[in-house]
Amino acid sequence: MTTSGHEPVTETLDVEECRALLALRGMGRVAFVADGFPMILPVNYTLVGEWIVFRTDPGSKLDHLPLAPAAFEIDGRDDQHTAWSVVVQGHAREITTALGDTYARVRAAAIDVLAPGDKAHWIGIEIERISGRRIASEA
Amino acid sequence: MTTSGHEPVTETLDVEECRALLALRGMGRVAFVADGFPMILPVNYTLVGEWIVFRTDPGSKLDHLPLAPAAFEIDGRDDQHTAWSVVVQGHAREITTALGDTYARVRAAAIDVLAPGDKAHWIGIEIERISGRRIASEA
Repeated sequence: MTTSGHEPVTETLDVEECRALLALRGMGRVAFVADGFPMILPVNYTLVGEWIVFRTDPGSKLDHLPLAPAAFEIDGRDDQHTAWSVVVQGHAREITTALGDTYARVRAAAIDVLAPGDKAHWIGIEIERISGRRIASEA
Repeated sequence: MTTSGHEPVTETLDVEECRALLALRGMGRVAFVADGFPMILPVNYTLVGEWIVFRTDPGSKLDHLPLAPAAFEIDGRDDQHTAWSVVVQGHAREITTALGDTYARVRAAAIDVLAPGDKAHWIGIEIERISGRRIASEA
């Protein structure tokens, strides 16, 4: 394949790069199926070991995520010409004492939540698949 | 409900505000179900009437989106303390001549695509449900 300096180029990120980007924390988006329709909602999250973790109040996420397959995405730009994204897929669990050591480790994490509400329920997506890409367009 | 000036506040956006934010165009994220798992992928999109439109090459989106239920999300920040998001749900279609006038209207739109590839296939999500919110945290 030949590309000129003006053609955009897609680079696949390896797992270590994906994890490093996830470790930046902050804001991401969770996708799940609710009543037969995919749904996407932004969440403040943190990465704890193999878990993407966020807090929520009773509602759509708590109704549909526990034990269900889910996706989580973050994206950003390195500069004006370079954009990246990372996608995680895995099953979601409500983080309760039933998870033993995982409960203790996850609940020890701090999550800086922007939205109002107690957000007393913690949900984790256990990372089963991870992929990422970076697109560089040298304008 | 009483809130101090330091409590975050969630505001529900009306349909006109949601549409105005979608009309900013640029980058959003599409969610769909592939092999039983939700998936989220970033896309460059535009809004044409009742359609969220993006271009793609053969692959996961083209395999799974046409005729399937889908979601689309954009988010952003007005300033350091104010974040917003808009979510659309609807069925996806590949935009072909079978859609008649819609084909002509959609294909007349320009989409500035960052990623490489011909992106010869156009996919539209017809807006069936739309919701949005803004979270203001007065720090």
